[in-house]
Amino acid sequence: MAVTEPIRSNITHARVTAFHEGVGSERADTLATEEPLEIRVQGPEQEQIQVAVTMRTPGGDFDLAVGFLFTEGLIEPGEVRRVAYCDNLPGEDQRYNVVSVTLGRSFDAERLRRNFYANSSCGVCGKAALEDIEVRCSPVAPGPEVSLDVLLSLPARLRAAQKMFERTGGLHAAGLFTPEGEAASIHEDVGRHNAVDKAVGERYLAGGVPVAHHVLQVSGRASFEIVQKAAVAGIPIVSAVSAPSSLAVEAADRFQMTLVGFVRDGRCNVYTHPERIRSAS
Amino acid sequence: MAVTEPIRSNITHARVTAFHEGVGSERADTLATEEPLEIRVQGPEQEQIQVAVTMRTPGGDFDLAVGFLFTEGLIEPGEVRRVAYCDNLPGEDQRYNVVSVTLGRSFDAERLRRNFYANSSCGVCGKAALEDIEVRCSPVAPGPEVSLDVLLSLPARLRAAQKMFERTGGLHAAGLFTPEGEAASIHEDVGRHNAVDKAVGERYLAGGVPVAHHVLQVSGRASFEIVQKAAVAGIPIVSAVSAPSSLAVEAADRFQMTLVGFVRDGRCNVYTHPERIRSAS
Repeated sequence: MAVTEPIRSNITHARVTAFHEGVGSERADTLATEEPLEIRVQGPEQEQIQVAVTMRTPGGDFDLAVGFLFTEGLIEPGEVRRVAYCDNLPGEDQRYNVVSVTLGRSFDAERLRRNFYANSSCGVCGKAALEDIEVRCSPVAPGPEVSLDVLLSLPARLRAAQKMFERTGGLHAAGLFTPEGEAASIHEDVGRHNAVDKAVGERYLAGGVPVAHHVLQVSGRASFEIVQKAAVAGIPIVSAVSAPSSLAVEAADRFQMTLVGFVRDGRCNVYTHPERIRSAS
Repeated sequence: MAVTEPIRSNITHARVTAFHEGVGSERADTLATEEPLEIRVQGPEQEQIQVAVTMRTPGGDFDLAVGFLFTEGLIEPGEVRRVAYCDNLPGEDQRYNVVSVTLGRSFDAERLRRNFYANSSCGVCGKAALEDIEVRCSPVAPGPEVSLDVLLSLPARLRAAQKMFERTGGLHAAGLFTPEGEAASIHEDVGRHNAVDKAVGERYLAGGVPVAHHVLQVSGRASFEIVQKAAVAGIPIVSAVSAPSSLAVEAADRFQMTLVGFVRDGRCNVYTHPERIRSAS
């Protein structure tokens, strides 16, 4: 279905003055690459429509584009026919920064406008934001259960799979894991939302959405936007190494998701729907 | 000039199931509040124009609104006449989630459109993004110098001033410090860009922009967007506890800013313009 994705460098080499014990010395360093990605959508007989520009780390660009469209409620499962870089752009610099997603149906540009501007018409507060997601998705399905032991092991499994973090120290990660702790899709990105979109997008392209039987583990905090994306994708359990925000907890509660935070040192806090966590005792 | 800002709760209370050594027990917890803020702008004889909706932690809302407008290149120093919550909204929920900034001149809605959509017309790549900022701002001025000792002390000073982090563990922080290490403006937020905008906005409202004599210290990583905002605000030195991205380093280099990363354990890496760092040796 998808055009093969070329390998782009997700690491950029730089020179740095490193200070240690008051003495500066120049040495080589590696940085996480950050470049804009433009996401376009089109139907079979339709002109390309620009949907978004996001700053991302190259790699998994097709996953990112498709995952973004899906978690933002702009496409449904099974609608993607083709994903490709745009090859009619002027410069080589831009060649791999524009991804076009072709759907099996015509794309409704009006739906795009409605999704992104809903807040301004129906009110600006947490309650209105929650009601806005409700229009787009239902509560996640009951189950699965995950054992406390597996849950507590996920941050280490995520970190072990992070290829770039070791070299740059500068990347967020998101992973989808089975209830047995098997990694299904793990991605890194300078943007925390992008890492989630890449992980979900990979599942989408493999025919694995909604993501009703996996745990989403993220490397940082859980914001409203992370929970919103997970809810639209149908993910039942979201686990974060750090703290959730108030609106993330409210959203998880409303969508019957299990939200876990501060998963570290053999401990965790379960903010909503603890019935999916199975502890030995 | 500004209407007095009411105190809103930046902490939300919640119940949590805390697992420790396999045993779950319910207890009270505190979360960082996350709520949307809508930013509006108007001229003296002009209708309000909606500029942005951002998810933020309440508190410093006027600083955030003004800082956002300034670091996005939408207003210049000295143009703000009045900042206020909108009081003609239907529900109490929304009352403190909409801030209106009144300027001394008419606001150019076309400039807003140009700023946010510039990438799509002039190309999508890091180079185009850098050229886009160049239209909006000049390289920062030479100086000031900061001693390595002061620089290395800033993360601890920032953390010490973070009132909410201790209670929630869920907040980014940004602080503007003098070269002697005195805090000029410190803010916390669930959103990393918001924390920077609040710190810069406080300086704006105090008549202290461009911010040509301060160091910006952030709690997390340095992305392109952080460096872009700092460049527009005229900040000469940006220091991050964690890693910068490739495009953050490129932007800092081009705008003649000093960009520092990995400031921890008595060490740091200086990515660009180390001449502003004074070490004893």
